[in-house]
Amino acid sequence: MTTLATTAETNSCCPPAADAGLPAAESDRLARVFKAVGDPTRVRLLSLIATGERGEACICDLTEPVGLSQGTVSHHMRILADAGLVEREQRGKWAYYSVVRSALDEAATALRTL
Amino acid sequence: MTTLATTAETNSCCPPAADAGLPAAESDRLARVFKAVGDPTRVRLLSLIATGERGEACICDLTEPVGLSQGTVSHHMRILADAGLVEREQRGKWAYYSVVRSALDEAATALRTL
Repeated sequence: MTTLATTAETNSCCPPAADAGLPAAESDRLARVFKAVGDPTRVRLLSLIATGERGEACICDLTEPVGLSQGTVSHHMRILADAGLVEREQRGKWAYYSVVRSALDEAATALRTL
Repeated sequence: MTTLATTAETNSCCPPAADAGLPAAESDRLARVFKAVGDPTRVRLLSLIATGERGEACICDLTEPVGLSQGTVSHHMRILADAGLVEREQRGKWAYYSVVRSALDEAATALRTL
Protein backbone atom coordinates (compact mmCIF):
# COMPACT_ATOMS: atom_id res chain seq x y z
CA MET A 1 0.00 0.00 0.00
CA THR A 2 1.00 3.56 -0.21
CA THR A 3 1.84 5.68 2.76
CA LEU A 4 0.93 9.22 2.01
CA ALA A 5 4.01 10.64 3.58
CA THR A 6 3.90 14.37 3.98
CA THR A 7 7.41 14.62 2.72
CA ALA A 8 7.20 18.32 2.12
CA GLU A 9 6.63 19.05 5.78
CA THR A 10 8.65 16.30 7.37
CA ASN A 11 11.68 16.88 5.19
CA SER A 12 11.62 20.57 5.78
CA CYS A 13 14.32 21.22 8.32
CA CYS A 14 13.30 24.13 10.42
CA PRO A 15 10.75 26.52 8.98
CA PRO A 16 10.59 29.80 10.85
CA ALA A 17 7.84 29.74 13.44
CA ALA A 18 5.05 32.27 13.04
CA ASP A 19 6.44 34.15 16.02
CA ALA A 20 10.06 34.06 14.81
CA GLY A 21 11.87 37.16 13.65
CA LEU A 22 10.96 40.67 14.70
CA PRO A 23 7.48 41.29 16.12
CA ALA A 24 5.13 42.99 13.69
CA ALA A 25 4.97 46.21 15.74
CA GLU A 26 8.75 46.50 15.78
CA SER A 27 8.94 45.79 12.04
CA ASP A 28 6.38 48.55 11.43
CA ARG A 29 8.32 51.03 13.50
CA LEU A 30 11.64 50.27 11.86
CA ALA A 31 10.15 50.28 8.36
CA ARG A 32 8.80 53.77 9.00
CA VAL A 33 12.29 55.03 9.82
CA PHE A 34 13.88 53.28 6.85
CA LYS A 35 11.17 54.55 4.53
CA ALA A 36 11.94 58.08 5.67
CA VAL A 37 15.56 57.67 4.59
CA GLY A 38 14.55 55.68 1.51
CA ASP A 39 14.68 58.73 -0.70
CA PRO A 40 17.85 60.28 -2.21
CA THR A 41 16.85 63.85 -1.36
CA ARG A 42 16.20 62.98 2.26
CA VAL A 43 19.50 61.13 2.56
CA ARG A 44 21.21 64.21 1.18
CA LEU A 45 19.30 66.59 3.46
CA LEU A 46 20.23 64.50 6.49
CA SER A 47 23.89 64.51 5.50
CA LEU A 48 23.82 68.28 4.88
CA ILE A 49 22.34 68.90 8.32
CA ALA A 50 24.67 66.45 10.05
CA THR A 51 27.74 68.06 8.49
CA GLY A 52 26.45 71.59 9.05
CA GLU A 53 27.85 74.06 11.56
CA ARG A 54 26.94 72.81 15.08
CA GLY A 55 25.23 69.78 13.50
CA GLU A 56 22.27 71.83 12.39
CA ALA A 57 21.04 73.73 9.37
CA CYS A 58 18.52 76.43 8.57
CA ILE A 59 15.99 75.39 5.99
CA CYS A 60 16.96 78.55 4.12
CA ASP A 61 20.39 76.99 3.52
CA LEU A 62 19.14 73.59 2.42
CA THR A 63 17.20 74.50 -0.68
CA GLU A 64 20.14 75.47 -2.89
CA PRO A 65 22.32 72.38 -2.32
CA VAL A 66 19.45 70.04 -3.23
CA GLY A 67 18.09 72.30 -5.96
CA LEU A 68 14.52 72.20 -4.72
CA SER A 69 11.94 74.74 -3.60
CA GLN A 70 11.52 75.53 0.07
CA GLY A 71 8.07 73.95 0.01
CA THR A 72 9.46 70.67 -1.29
CA VAL A 73 12.34 70.71 1.18
CA SER A 74 9.85 71.41 4.00
CA HIS A 75 7.81 68.41 2.90
CA HIS A 76 10.88 66.16 3.05
CA MET A 77 11.88 67.60 6.41
CA ARG A 78 8.43 66.89 7.81
CA ILE A 79 8.77 63.21 6.84
CA LEU A 80 12.18 63.05 8.55
CA ALA A 81 10.80 64.79 11.65
CA ASP A 82 7.75 62.50 11.80
CA ALA A 83 10.12 59.52 11.74
CA GLY A 84 12.03 61.04 14.65
CA LEU A 85 15.24 61.50 12.66
CA VAL A 86 15.44 65.29 12.93
CA GLU A 87 14.30 67.92 15.39
CA ARG A 88 12.89 71.25 14.32
CA GLU A 89 13.38 74.53 16.11
CA GLN A 90 11.76 77.75 14.99
CA ARG A 91 14.01 80.81 15.33
CA GLY A 92 12.21 83.91 14.18
CA LYS A 93 11.39 83.50 10.53
CA TRP A 94 13.35 80.32 9.94
CA ALA A 95 13.15 76.70 10.96
CA TYR A 96 16.40 75.06 12.01
CA TYR A 97 16.88 71.33 11.91
CA SER A 98 19.25 69.09 13.78
CA VAL A 99 19.82 65.38 13.37
CA VAL A 100 18.61 63.09 16.17
CA ARG A 101 21.77 61.04 16.43
CA SER A 102 20.24 58.49 18.82
CA ALA A 103 17.50 57.64 16.30
CA LEU A 104 20.04 57.09 13.50
CA ASP A 105 22.15 54.95 15.83
CA GLU A 106 19.14 52.90 16.83
CA ALA A 107 18.20 52.28 13.20
CA ALA A 108 21.81 51.34 12.45
CA THR A 109 21.86 48.86 15.33
CA ALA A 110 18.60 47.34 14.10
CA LEU A 111 20.16 46.73 10.68
CA ARG A 112 23.21 45.11 12.21
CA THR A 113 21.24 42.87 14.52
CA LEU A 114 18.46 41.77 12.21
CA MET B 1 42.11 94.73 -12.44
CA THR B 2 38.74 94.19 -10.84
CA THR B 3 38.29 91.87 -7.95
CA LEU B 4 34.99 90.18 -8.47
CA ALA B 5 33.98 89.83 -4.85
CA THR B 6 31.70 86.89 -4.35
CA THR B 7 29.61 88.62 -1.73
CA ALA B 8 26.97 85.94 -1.67
CA GLU B 9 29.49 83.42 -0.39
CA THR B 10 31.57 85.68 1.80
CA ASN B 11 28.69 87.37 3.63
CA SER B 12 26.69 84.29 4.25
CA CYS B 13 27.57 82.66 7.57
CA CYS B 14 27.82 79.02 6.82
CA PRO B 15 25.26 77.66 4.41
CA PRO B 16 26.08 74.16 3.23
CA ALA B 17 27.99 74.36 -0.04
CA ALA B 18 26.42 72.76 -3.07
CA ASP B 19 29.03 70.02 -2.85
CA ALA B 20 28.61 69.50 0.92
CA GLY B 21 27.06 66.37 2.34
CA LEU B 22 26.94 63.09 0.52
CA PRO B 23 27.42 63.12 -3.25
CA ALA B 24 24.20 62.60 -5.21
CA ALA B 25 25.28 59.19 -6.52
CA GLU B 26 26.01 57.93 -3.01
CA SER B 27 22.69 59.33 -1.74
CA ASP B 28 20.89 57.50 -4.56
CA ARG B 29 22.60 54.23 -3.76
CA LEU B 30 21.91 54.45 -0.03
CA ALA B 31 18.30 55.52 -0.54
CA ARG B 32 17.73 52.45 -2.70
CA VAL B 33 18.89 50.19 0.13
CA PHE B 34 16.84 52.04 2.76
CA LYS B 35 13.78 52.02 0.52
CA ALA B 36 14.10 48.25 0.24
CA VAL B 37 13.91 47.92 4.02
CA GLY B 38 11.31 50.69 4.26
CA ASP B 39 8.47 48.20 4.34
CA PRO B 40 7.27 46.23 7.39
CA THR B 41 6.95 42.95 5.50
CA ARG B 42 10.47 43.22 4.13
CA VAL B 43 11.90 44.05 7.55
CA ARG B 44 10.15 40.97 8.89
CA LEU B 45 11.30 38.76 6.00
CA LEU B 46 14.89 39.89 6.54
CA SER B 47 14.70 39.12 10.23
CA LEU B 48 13.13 35.71 9.56
CA ILE B 49 15.93 34.82 7.15
CA ALA B 50 18.65 36.19 9.41
CA THR B 51 17.40 34.18 12.37
CA GLY B 52 16.79 31.07 10.28
CA GLU B 53 18.85 27.90 10.45
CA ARG B 54 22.28 28.62 8.92
CA GLY B 55 21.19 32.22 8.34
CA GLU B 56 19.02 31.26 5.43
CA ALA B 57 15.43 30.38 4.64
CA CYS B 58 13.48 28.64 1.91
CA ILE B 59 10.79 30.80 0.39
CA CYS B 60 8.42 27.94 1.14
CA ASP B 61 8.95 28.62 4.85
CA LEU B 62 8.51 32.39 4.66
CA THR B 63 4.95 32.65 3.44
CA GLU B 64 3.22 31.40 6.59
CA PRO B 65 4.97 33.66 9.14
CA VAL B 66 4.14 36.79 7.15
CA GLY B 67 0.70 35.53 6.09
CA LEU B 68 1.18 36.34 2.42
CA SER B 69 1.07 34.37 -0.83
CA GLN B 70 4.25 33.00 -2.31
CA GLY B 71 3.90 35.41 -5.22
CA THR B 72 3.79 38.39 -2.91
CA VAL B 73 6.69 37.12 -0.84
CA SER B 74 8.69 36.54 -4.05
CA HIS B 75 8.00 40.13 -5.08
CA HIS B 76 9.34 41.43 -1.76
CA MET B 77 12.35 39.12 -1.96
CA ARG B 78 13.17 40.42 -5.44
CA ILE B 79 13.26 43.99 -4.11
CA LEU B 80 15.59 42.93 -1.30
CA ALA B 81 17.79 41.01 -3.74
CA ASP B 82 17.91 43.93 -6.20
CA ALA B 83 19.11 46.15 -3.33
CA GLY B 84 21.85 43.64 -2.59
CA LEU B 85 20.49 42.76 0.86
CA VAL B 86 19.82 39.07 0.19
CA GLU B 87 21.24 36.42 -2.05
CA ARG B 88 19.10 33.85 -3.79
CA GLU B 89 20.05 30.27 -4.47
CA GLN B 90 17.85 27.88 -6.37
CA ARG B 91 17.84 24.34 -4.98
CA GLY B 92 15.62 22.09 -7.01
CA LYS B 93 12.11 23.43 -6.79
CA TRP B 94 12.74 26.03 -4.11
CA ALA B 95 14.59 29.31 -3.82
CA TYR B 96 16.65 29.81 -0.67
CA TYR B 97 17.60 33.23 0.56
CA SER B 98 20.41 34.35 2.80
CA VAL B 99 21.10 37.78 4.21
CA VAL B 100 24.09 39.70 2.82
CA ARG B 101 25.49 40.76 6.15
CA SER B 102 28.10 43.09 4.61
CA ALA B 103 25.38 45.09 2.84
CA LEU B 104 23.40 45.52 6.07
CA ASP B 105 26.57 46.52 7.91
CA GLU B 106 27.44 49.04 5.23
CA ALA B 107 23.97 50.60 5.41
CA ALA B 108 24.23 50.71 9.20
CA THR B 109 27.59 52.44 9.00
CA ALA B 110 26.19 54.98 6.56
CA LEU B 111 23.42 55.85 9.02
CA ARG B 112 25.91 56.29 11.83
CA THR B 113 28.28 58.44 9.83
CA LEU B 114 25.81 60.66 8.02
